[in-house]
Amino acid sequence: MAKFERHVFVCTNQRDAGNPRGCCNPNGTAELHKQLSQAVSAAGLKTIVRVNKAGCLDQCEHGPTMVVYPEAVWYGGVGAADVAEIVQSHLVEGRPVERLRLDDACINTATCTHKPRPPASTP
Amino acid sequence: MAKFERHVFVCTNQRDAGNPRGCCNPNGTAELHKQLSQAVSAAGLKTIVRVNKAGCLDQCEHGPTMVVYPEAVWYGGVGAADVAEIVQSHLVEGRPVERLRLDDACINTATCTHKPRPPASTP
Repeated sequence: MAKFERHVFVCTNQRDAGNPRGCCNPNGTAELHKQLSQAVSAAGLKTIVRVNKAGCLDQCEHGPTMVVYPEAVWYGGVGAADVAEIVQSHLVEGRPVERLRLDDACINTATCTHKPRPPASTP
Repeated sequence: MAKFERHVFVCTNQRDAGNPRGCCNPNGTAELHKQLSQAVSAAGLKTIVRVNKAGCLDQCEHGPTMVVYPEAVWYGGVGAADVAEIVQSHLVEGRPVERLRLDDACINTATCTHKPRPPASTP
């Protein structure tokens, strides 16, 4: 064995519900990490891809966020419905999922097209 | 701003004191993460290097462990006394600290020169 071919870090940080930055793990169950981890195992990648819990990745406004190394591909707004595509396209076939990808200009910046996060619409 | 130039993940997982695999964060204070984070700030690297908490990196027998991406350099047996050298040599000057580096052959393997971990010597 050797290094992981890919190492996926899923933000499992929690913030208070009212925090203006948002939260990657709002119900505290790290559900996205669990789903990705199970899907990676099911795809037979467990020995070469590790899906890790991470503390705050500091891209909260784009949450839920994750990053795939060594290629440093960041994803934002990831949900359960995206897990199968990320695993098959990116982790099996090596093609990042462009529709979920965070642009470099959106990372580590005070303002971008996603920031400040618009207020939630009221019904 | 853009992606971090380096992204450091420090294992802050806790195991029971008697766990034969050992533990990267035995007293639960994530002290190594805190020390690295403070040293990175003091070195003026905060906007380009992120020091992140991570869940179990699964290299427990080599702990305390950390990994630096995108170069995928793994360190094991890291303590407070190593923090300044890691920051200056690796994160400032780009030269990994070879004496702390985990060999590829020691990662994701059931046996290596560190495994199984020898029993703690008794006084």
